Amino acid sequence: MPDVSNIGATPPTNHVQREVTTIDRFRQAMRELAGGVAVVTVGEGPDRTGFTSTSVESLSVEPPRLLLCVNESSSSWKQLQKRPYFGVNILRADHQVLADQFAGRGGLQGEERYRGAKWTTLSSNGAAILEDALAGADCFVEEILLRHGHAIVIGQVRSILLHANGQPLLYWQGAYREIARAQAK
Amino acid sequence: MPDVSNIGATPPTNHVQREVTTIDRFRQAMRELAGGVAVVTVGEGPDRTGFTSTSVESLSVEPPRLLLCVNESSSSWKQLQKRPYFGVNILRADHQVLADQFAGRGGLQGEERYRGAKWTTLSSNGAAILEDALAGADCFVEEILLRHGHAIVIGQVRSILLHANGQPLLYWQGAYREIARAQAK
Repeated sequence: MPDVSNIGATPPTNHVQREVTTIDRFRQAMRELAGGVAVVTVGEGPDRTGFTSTSVESLSVEPPRLLLCVNESSSSWKQLQKRPYFGVNILRADHQVLADQFAGRGGLQGEERYRGAKWTTLSSNGAAILEDALAGADCFVEEILLRHGHAIVIGQVRSILLHANGQPLLYWQGAYREIARAQAK
Repeated sequence: MPDVSNIGATPPTNHVQREVTTIDRFRQAMRELAGGVAVVTVGEGPDRTGFTSTSVESLSVEPPRLLLCVNESSSSWKQLQKRPYFGVNILRADHQVLADQFAGRGGLQGEERYRGAKWTTLSSNGAAILEDALAGADCFVEEILLRHGHAIVIGQVRSILLHANGQPLLYWQGAYREIARAQAK
C-alpha cells in the first residue's frame, strides 16, 4: 500500500508538526527524481566558483534557452550578480570527484573546486567550460526571478561544446548512479 | 577533439545559417542531459489531460515548491489555466507504456492517455495521482511566468504519495533508460 500524506483534507491537530511532515516527505519524494548531473560555473579568475546541479533544464529550443535554480545563500549567486555569464557542463560517469568538488564536499570553496580538470572558454567573456564534458553550454543571463530563497535563472545559450560519445553521471536517492548499459526494454 | 560551435566570436557570414546551427547543436546538447521521467496530470473528468516531462525539479524544500515547464501550444496548458491544480507522478522503469501515452505517441489525446493505469487523488480538488508512482505530488499553481512560448509553473505541494522502493524510468539521448543495478564506483 502506498504511504499517503494528505496535507489538506483534515484540520491539523498540530500545524507545526504537519508542516515538518510535509517538508520531510517532499524531500523524500524529490530523492526519487533521478537527474543528470551538471557543474555550473560562474565568475572569473580568482573569483570564479560554481556548484553541482541536477536541476538544469531546457526551457525553449527556438530560441535556445536554459533554466536553472541557484540558492540565494550561495557564493555562486553573488558572482552571478556581478558577472551575468555562466557555463553549464553535463558530467560523465567518471566525473564523480569533480561533482563532489563543486558540491563543496571536503570544504572546497571557489577556485579550489576547479582543480584536477581541464577548462576552456567558448567566448571572450564566457564562463569556464569543462573540456571533456559530455556537453557544455556557454550562457548569458537573460532574466532572473527571485522566489523562495532561490534565483530562477533563464540563460541565453551562446555557444555549445559537444562530445560524440560517453555515459552520463546520474544522481538518484542521494547517490551517484550510472545508466544501465543495455537499453531498457 | 571536442566539436566546438562558437556562436559569438566571429561575425556571421550567414546569420540564418548560424542560428539554425545553434538551435540544432543546443538540441543535441540537451539530449545528453539525462532525466527522470514524470507524468504531469491536469484537468478533471472528461477534460483531463496531461503530458510526459523530464523537466520537473525542486525549487525549494522549505516551503515545498516544484517547478516545471509547459508548452503554451499544449492542451495541458489550456486546462491548467482553467483549473490551477496539477499532479506530478515520478515513473517507474516499467511505466514506459504510460510515458508514451502521455507523450501523445499513437495519437492519444486527453483522457485516453490515462488508460491502463490506476489513479487516485490526494485532496478533494486535486489532479490525478498514479497509484503506483515512485512518488506523486499533488500541487496547486502558485505562479505562472510566460517565457519563450512556455509557461514556467511554480507549484505549491499540498500532498505527497510515496512508495518505499522501485527503480526509476530515465530518458537520455532520445530513449528510455534504466539505472544500473550496481551502484557506480
